[in-house]
This record gives sequence, structure tokens and C-alpha cells, in this order.
Amino acid sequence: MRRGRFITLEGGEGAGKSTQARRLADRLRERGIQVVQTREPGGSPGAEALRALLVEGGAERWSPLSEALMMYAARSDHLERVIRPALESGAWVVCDRFSDSTRAYQGAGGGVSPEVIEQLDRTVVGDDRPDLTLVFDLPVEAGLARAHHRAGGEARFESKGVDFHNRLRQGFLAIALAEADRCRLIDATRPVDEVSEAVWTAVIEALEDAGHG
Amino acid sequence: MRRGRFITLEGGEGAGKSTQARRLADRLRERGIQVVQTREPGGSPGAEALRALLVEGGAERWSPLSEALMMYAARSDHLERVIRPALESGAWVVCDRFSDSTRAYQGAGGGVSPEVIEQLDRTVVGDDRPDLTLVFDLPVEAGLARAHHRAGGEARFESKGVDFHNRLRQGFLAIALAEADRCRLIDATRPVDEVSEAVWTAVIEALEDAGHG
Repeated sequence: MRRGRFITLEGGEGAGKSTQARRLADRLRERGIQVVQTREPGGSPGAEALRALLVEGGAERWSPLSEALMMYAARSDHLERVIRPALESGAWVVCDRFSDSTRAYQGAGGGVSPEVIEQLDRTVVGDDRPDLTLVFDLPVEAGLARAHHRAGGEARFESKGVDFHNRLRQGFLAIALAEADRCRLIDATRPVDEVSEAVWTAVIEALEDAGHG
Repeated sequence: MRRGRFITLEGGEGAGKSTQARRLADRLRERGIQVVQTREPGGSPGAEALRALLVEGGAERWSPLSEALMMYAARSDHLERVIRPALESGAWVVCDRFSDSTRAYQGAGGGVSPEVIEQLDRTVVGDDRPDLTLVFDLPVEAGLARAHHRAGGEARFESKGVDFHNRLRQGFLAIALAEADRCRLIDATRPVDEVSEAVWTAVIEALEDAGHG
């Protein structure tokens, strides 16, 4: 059994990642590919319990360092219980947020040093880095306005203010530039169907055998 | 204001650490020393929420690596919100379990590599290591029998079996040997009043100015 592919969707609040993750998973399934669609923080029972602690409460409930450690605790559980078994069984994994969100939110946004995050990433993720990461970009004000209108979001992070979200956006753009082999930048200001087409084109180009899972 | 001293109590289940922590805190207060008595995992509202996830549920609810990351997330919160402010205000901190428990439980007991735990410790604890650590030792069977009779304990860890608890005991003994400057081994098989005297003697000897806080 050939190992599955690991695709992550990244970006700030209100970028439309969840909708696009669902559409991408559906489109891959239409091609006959087994897909596990999941999200972070969360994606396994343990990680979802940690998510509840992370996304609720006041903006200052946790320091950025405590957050980063909780994110990697949740990621460790998610990888062990969901992502690695899926990839090993040959399924593709489509994940809404992964390590780049920790780099951007707790690193660029919160000030945790890149060295600390990379050490955690080597320990927890190791060689199971994504094969392809779609980085959704749009202006901060537009994203926060969209996120504000939706239920069940990441309220604690949305409440952190425009300066924080600007550092976040620059953080994601820096990752997309620095790791251009793995990342594709997606202009998320366009209508949702156009964004879906851009996502699909990126997946086909990056993972040439998308039709032959 | 002179910085306070940081004393930790370590050891396996049923060693009597909580009773001895309370007695030590009382005795220090009788000497006019301001004392913050606390515990891990927990000790701050965020860390106590993580504790609830850690000590409840089945033995295999979390992998040792996920546990170690959650322990250091909780420790980070506890240090930032309780321990460092207390020490800086001149108070002494008496803490039931700290980093050595992660080294013993998730390291020696659970198989997380020492390098990973030391990296986490450098990142989270940094220079705020304990001034004195009392390592309570007793045979595993005796400790588990005592722990079994008490309420509100760390049930998930108690359920991990005798082999695990033997690795744990050896882990604590190895720490006490390797860091003899910081650690004092306490024979916890003796009657509780004798143990209290041994604790007090260790504190007086290690922190000569215990009477002049």
C-alpha cells in the first residue's frame, strides 16, 4: 500500500479554509481517493479536549509559550491517533491548520522564538511534515469581518486585535516564501468557486498523481 | 527584597508527599517565612484544567510524549502565574511534584527520551530550577497500597502497573544520585513524624538561613 499524501490548509481567521477543506476532500473522493478530513487544534478526542481549553476564555488566558506547548501536545495526539494511521493505510489527509499555524500564531504573532517551535516540531512531527500546504491570504480586516459572522469559531484568537492579526498574516506569508517547495499561496479575496479552482490546480500541480491515488 | 527559595517534593504514589508538603509549609511559616504551597500538575487555574485531562481517563488515554508536552504546558502556566511571582516577592515556594516527576513518569517510566525532556525543561523552567528537592523513596508495593486507600489521587497514573512504577522508582533514585547537590533522598517507609523530622533537617542543612527568611 502506497503511503497517502498529507495536505494542510493554513491562514488567518475568516479565510475560508474550512469550506475549501471540505470541497477539496469531496473532489479527491470523487477521484476514488480515500480521504481523512480533519482539523487542528483538535482532530482526535484528546486533542479536541485541549482545543476547548485553547479557543475559549479571555485573550490572555494562556501565554504564547503555554499555547505552543498545548498545540504540540494536541498535535502529538492527533498525529499518533489519526494522521499517521491514515497515511500508513494509504488514505490522504486534508487538515485545516497544522504546524504553520503554531509558527504564525504563537511564533510571529505571540513572540515564541522560532528555535523553540522548530525543536517542538522536530520532536512531535519529525518526518511527517505536509507534502503540500495551501496558504490562504487575505487582508486582516476582511478576514476578521468574515470570522465575526460565523459560529463555533476560534473566539479567543479572533479577540486578539488587529496588530496581532497583522503579525500573523506576515508570518504566514514569510512561511510561504521560505518554503516555496511545500507551500502554495492562495488569494482568498476571490469568490469561493474561484478559490476552489485555485486549490484544485495547486493540488494537481504539486501532487501530479492526484488522479491515481 | 531577597528572592525566595524553591523547594520541591518528589517521588512515586503514596509516598506521603502532600502531608509532608503541608507540614513543611506550616513549619516555615512558624519561622516567619512567607510560603506559597502548591502542586503539579496544576497549581494555577490553567494548569489545573490540564491536570484534569491528565489524571483522569484510561491508562492509555495519552501517549507519554503527549503527556510530557501537557505537563510542560501546565508547568509553563504555573511558573508564569504562581511560582515566579511568589519567588520574586520573597516568598518561599513548596511544590508537590515538579520537573523531576516528568523525568521519572514520562521519561524513565514512559520512554520519552531524556534529551526531549531536558529541551522542554530549558525552554520552560530555564534558570528557575528548585533550590532543594526532597526525593521520597519507598518500595512500589507499599506506595501503591497507600495510594489506593486515598481519595482524589492520580488514578490514571496509579493504574499503570507495577513494572511502570518500578521504572519510576529507579528514575527518581537516578535523579537523586545524579544531582546530589540539589536532591536529598528521604526514606518514606518510616512513621510520618520521623519523615517530617528528616525533611526539616534536610531543609535546614541545605538552606542554612531557613530561620532568617
